[in-house]
Amino acid sequence: MKRIYTLSSLSVAALAAMAAPALAQETPPVSPETQYIFNTLLFLIGGFLVMWMAAGFAMLEAGLVRSKNVSMQCLKNISLYSIAGLMFWVTGYNLMYTGVDGGFMGSFGPYSFDPVGGDALDTGYSTASDWFFQMVFVATAASIVSGTLAERIKLWPFLAFVVVLTGFIYPIAGSWQWGGGWLSEAGFSDFAGSTLVHSVGGWAALAGALILGARKGKYGADGQVHVMPGSSMPLATLGTFILWLGWFGFNGASQLAMGTISDVTDISRIFANTNMAAAGGVIVAVVLTQILYKKVDVTMALNGALAGLVSITAEPLAPSVLQSIIIGGVGGALVVFTVPLLDKLKIDDVVGAIPVHLIAGIWGTLIVPLSNTDASYATQALGVAAYGVFTVIASAAVWFALKATIGIRVGEEEEAMGLDKVEIGVEAYPEFGQGSQRL
Amino acid sequence: MKRIYTLSSLSVAALAAMAAPALAQETPPVSPETQYIFNTLLFLIGGFLVMWMAAGFAMLEAGLVRSKNVSMQCLKNISLYSIAGLMFWVTGYNLMYTGVDGGFMGSFGPYSFDPVGGDALDTGYSTASDWFFQMVFVATAASIVSGTLAERIKLWPFLAFVVVLTGFIYPIAGSWQWGGGWLSEAGFSDFAGSTLVHSVGGWAALAGALILGARKGKYGADGQVHVMPGSSMPLATLGTFILWLGWFGFNGASQLAMGTISDVTDISRIFANTNMAAAGGVIVAVVLTQILYKKVDVTMALNGALAGLVSITAEPLAPSVLQSIIIGGVGGALVVFTVPLLDKLKIDDVVGAIPVHLIAGIWGTLIVPLSNTDASYATQALGVAAYGVFTVIASAAVWFALKATIGIRVGEEEEAMGLDKVEIGVEAYPEFGQGSQRL
Amino acid sequence: MKRIYTLSSLSVAALAAMAAPALAQETPPVSPETQYIFNTLLFLIGGFLVMWMAAGFAMLEAGLVRSKNVSMQCLKNISLYSIAGLMFWVTGYNLMYTGVDGGFMGSFGPYSFDPVGGDALDTGYSTASDWFFQMVFVATAASIVSGTLAERIKLWPFLAFVVVLTGFIYPIAGSWQWGGGWLSEAGFSDFAGSTLVHSVGGWAALAGALILGARKGKYGADGQVHVMPGSSMPLATLGTFILWLGWFGFNGASQLAMGTISDVTDISRIFANTNMAAAGGVIVAVVLTQILYKKVDVTMALNGALAGLVSITAEPLAPSVLQSIIIGGVGGALVVFTVPLLDKLKIDDVVGAIPVHLIAGIWGTLIVPLSNTDASYATQALGVAAYGVFTVIASAAVWFALKATIGIRVGEEEEAMGLDKVEIGVEAYPEFGQGSQRL
Repeated sequence: MKRIYTLSSLSVAALAAMAAPALAQETPPVSPETQYIFNTLLFLIGGFLVMWMAAGFAMLEAGLVRSKNVSMQCLKNISLYSIAGLMFWVTGYNLMYTGVDGGFMGSFGPYSFDPVGGDALDTGYSTASDWFFQMVFVATAASIVSGTLAERIKLWPFLAFVVVLTGFIYPIAGSWQWGGGWLSEAGFSDFAGSTLVHSVGGWAALAGALILGARKGKYGADGQVHVMPGSSMPLATLGTFILWLGWFGFNGASQLAMGTISDVTDISRIFANTNMAAAGGVIVAVVLTQILYKKVDVTMALNGALAGLVSITAEPLAPSVLQSIIIGGVGGALVVFTVPLLDKLKIDDVVGAIPVHLIAGIWGTLIVPLSNTDASYATQALGVAAYGVFTVIASAAVWFALKATIGIRVGEEEEAMGLDKVEIGVEAYPEFGQGSQRL
Repeated sequence: MKRIYTLSSLSVAALAAMAAPALAQETPPVSPETQYIFNTLLFLIGGFLVMWMAAGFAMLEAGLVRSKNVSMQCLKNISLYSIAGLMFWVTGYNLMYTGVDGGFMGSFGPYSFDPVGGDALDTGYSTASDWFFQMVFVATAASIVSGTLAERIKLWPFLAFVVVLTGFIYPIAGSWQWGGGWLSEAGFSDFAGSTLVHSVGGWAALAGALILGARKGKYGADGQVHVMPGSSMPLATLGTFILWLGWFGFNGASQLAMGTISDVTDISRIFANTNMAAAGGVIVAVVLTQILYKKVDVTMALNGALAGLVSITAEPLAPSVLQSIIIGGVGGALVVFTVPLLDKLKIDDVVGAIPVHLIAGIWGTLIVPLSNTDASYATQALGVAAYGVFTVIASAAVWFALKATIGIRVGEEEEAMGLDKVEIGVEAYPEFGQGSQRL
Repeated sequence: MKRIYTLSSLSVAALAAMAAPALAQETPPVSPETQYIFNTLLFLIGGFLVMWMAAGFAMLEAGLVRSKNVSMQCLKNISLYSIAGLMFWVTGYNLMYTGVDGGFMGSFGPYSFDPVGGDALDTGYSTASDWFFQMVFVATAASIVSGTLAERIKLWPFLAFVVVLTGFIYPIAGSWQWGGGWLSEAGFSDFAGSTLVHSVGGWAALAGALILGARKGKYGADGQVHVMPGSSMPLATLGTFILWLGWFGFNGASQLAMGTISDVTDISRIFANTNMAAAGGVIVAVVLTQILYKKVDVTMALNGALAGLVSITAEPLAPSVLQSIIIGGVGGALVVFTVPLLDKLKIDDVVGAIPVHLIAGIWGTLIVPLSNTDASYATQALGVAAYGVFTVIASAAVWFALKATIGIRVGEEEEAMGLDKVEIGVEAYPEFGQGSQRL
């Protein structure tokens, strides 16, 4: 097949209709029913792609922790995704989207979907598809926390934190913008969640890392940083590719409608820009680590891709291709420079989630006005600060409460032995090497 | 973008049409051609998602067997998926769907697709897309058998069984219900295959496990059960996430139509309910294993997710969200209690496929009348029993015939050495640990 | 739900319209706007499926190289995908598609997408979605090279080659056919790229393998071939399943339109045929290796699937099901016979990419006239030869230039130590076995 496209694929009847404006005036180009189907389909496809990101985080984190903690990381990720689903139904959705009206949170109570065989055309999409799409975003925020705090946090306090984060902190914060709350009225702009999803997850992770402390032996008394290499680079790579794939749903379906040619064209731009920002992040991270360390760090390349993706998430539609590459490339550079900075501050972020999701999320949000003239730098900064203050305070309160009650950290001996032996009882790789006996 | 949805995304012309009932009467809201495209697209998307489940089973099983049998498990899974495709074309589809008419099977012969450039509108969807969607379901049933019988069944008798299962047993059984056979006329209800797919696979696996016997050393003479831990928890986790993702296609596209707003709304409900049942299965399994064993068993969490998914598959549309969580949660509990029960009965199910697919499949089928008033408990029980009797008898006949002829089990020494060395010649992990030398 | 389909899912209004030809004459069955959305959606879905193939190549290669080179293989794959995206924007797309007019290449310069909110109906699809879909094909060609040259090529010259391949060689060659160049006018036929993508990648890999030489120790002086087994069969299996899944997008979306029932029906045929060819490749490879070697080689089964897929890619629409199985099955056989042949010629192809992509690609292209009467064997052979001559000469020129300047091969000691230690500094599996100390 020759791939120079022509209109041959459009039927003759359709071409006739294009030449008949009189008829077009009478018949809507895409009927409201067809639009409803397209919009809902967008949420479903976007939703399953973002759901798949839960697997991406699981693989990324399983690859970047040591083998003695891999089973735990798998368990935390499948559990947090489950909790996110339950909590975003019990309280999350309505707190975020119902009756916010310029305020600071929505209403309490479980969410109700359309009935079976629902035919209420006026919403423009199925409410269950919308719930599904929003729900998978919550899980993303929780996954970020899981990566940073790996290898020393106890299972149950972690899950308790996820309950609060996904049922209350994330939805309340989200209501300010996507629920039509005060920040939305102030003119803040965050297309798909550089701030609402990624930096919220990042701030919660930062608060947790500060309160939980670093892994035993990570930072020497002399300021030396001990590298604790991840157990499987191919799993980390797989996780990154999964996340990259899922991001087309994350950003693309955040267009929220696919029933007009303008909408589907915008979604296409978003796909291309999203891909370009990730590519920019990879290349910058690869080149920079070669220059700085004379070797390329594959984990930096992976995190460079993710930082590029987070950076473009606040505004994946408006930028030109070149702007997208630059926005993503700067995100990749920020990761390369921030990872060692966190180590200097003795903030132990096992998988690099704070540079990737928080730092690149702030960058992406602040740079929105470059391409989107409806946004202003001042309001973007206000939004970034507001989310930071609220999330850090709320998260820290929960972490302190958990620390004071059930405790959040495993004992020293247990940490050395690995969480898999202590809390799971199933080793990740029982036959390989000396996994759990090694530091 | 503010995510409070408004109708702003619907074009002005479309809104005008909504306000013009007179026009709407003349113009069908979604033309038959557009419906045909949507229906076919549903089968294609659902089909590729369910095809992806073949990879999920491969990874789940590769992670849950010992490293000396991992290559074999990979080979079995890619081979069974291939055989399923060939056999469901040679005999399967027509046996299942053509000319059943209230009876016990369809007709013999290969299936024919639409011609190139097919434009027969009256089917309402492309026949090749329908074939593709139904075919991937067959592979799922075969994958279930592969997991249970791992680590001691010979390759070629296993593949021979798959030929019979996918070309004859599954399609004949399936014809009773989805082909419009006697059970369908009796009022049996199984939306996406808790019984037709999952319990059929489970019964076939059970018959095989009984005839094949347990792995050498699994059950001590003193009634002791020896744990034989799987080689890779992250691969098992990946497999579970793949299956979870694929299940949106499995259940969602079983709506079989997406060309009306009612249909796409129902698909959305199915996505949400399916997700909730899996989440319920995870949480129940995690909490129960913590209570029972003081540690969480990550393999139980994974199987809890799968049991939740199997449980909701018989009726993913009608339940409320809460009902879905409970249905899935009970499925998760059944796994936690049935896995040790099978060990007591010395039925050696390597990956837990019988609890997940058979027990949860029965549960899901029996509970349909809770939410679907068209179903009755008696007819559901009749269906469960009919599928059990037929599948066990037919499968056992094949297993016995194979045992009496080419034999189905590797020798003791070969089992100890691992199937990869004996039948494959390629180790799964030649550089790690002592994989194949260990029990 | 009974799965005997009826027209019940079509709304009454739609059925009325079907019975009203008078009305149908006036209203186009699928409006141009709706067609535009469907066409664009096809590119987006096909695009994300083919993008996912980048992960498939990464996993396949990570599984088939030794553990001391796994991190490098991961890095190369994520980097080449990033470079492909950048280069296909900077020069690739316009070189391939703009102003070719029967000639040998298009024009120079970066590509421009539709503006935000684009509403230019006359293209029939969004230009950004088209760019995205074409771009992911380029990455596939580059991935092929990565696999063949693994374990001894330096990182930076490899990436430099990728820049030239994705920005110039592939687009110029592609313009001859899909850009409407001289081969297209000559009547050559290659539906989705057996030649344009797979054999171009394969020729480039072959040229590289000849110039780079075999891995140290692979071929003994006495003509003995030393097996260097891959580090992880499950990752190789996962990679193959990912590629199989992605191929539905690769071939299916190469229909390039989904806005008519004929187009979506053709896409369905393509899905089914593509699956059948892969299944045929698997079964033939499994049976043949059993007969030839008395054991089944799992890597041959995987490569058999891929060869089946490559074989059907030149014409996935026209063949009958049986023809598809045979075309794919011959592809599988070619792999089984070509892999040892390459070893006899001392051409070291680490993952078997030349048999899979080049040999099966040639086979698939030459056999097109069997089912597609518009094609002729002579023109197909002409096209195969033209692509071979051009790609080998252009690639060899680049490889020689790189060899003469920065060098393309790591030192002997470094090769023994593994690329991960030498160029990356991050081991793939730091805790397992003696990975990097072993040959």
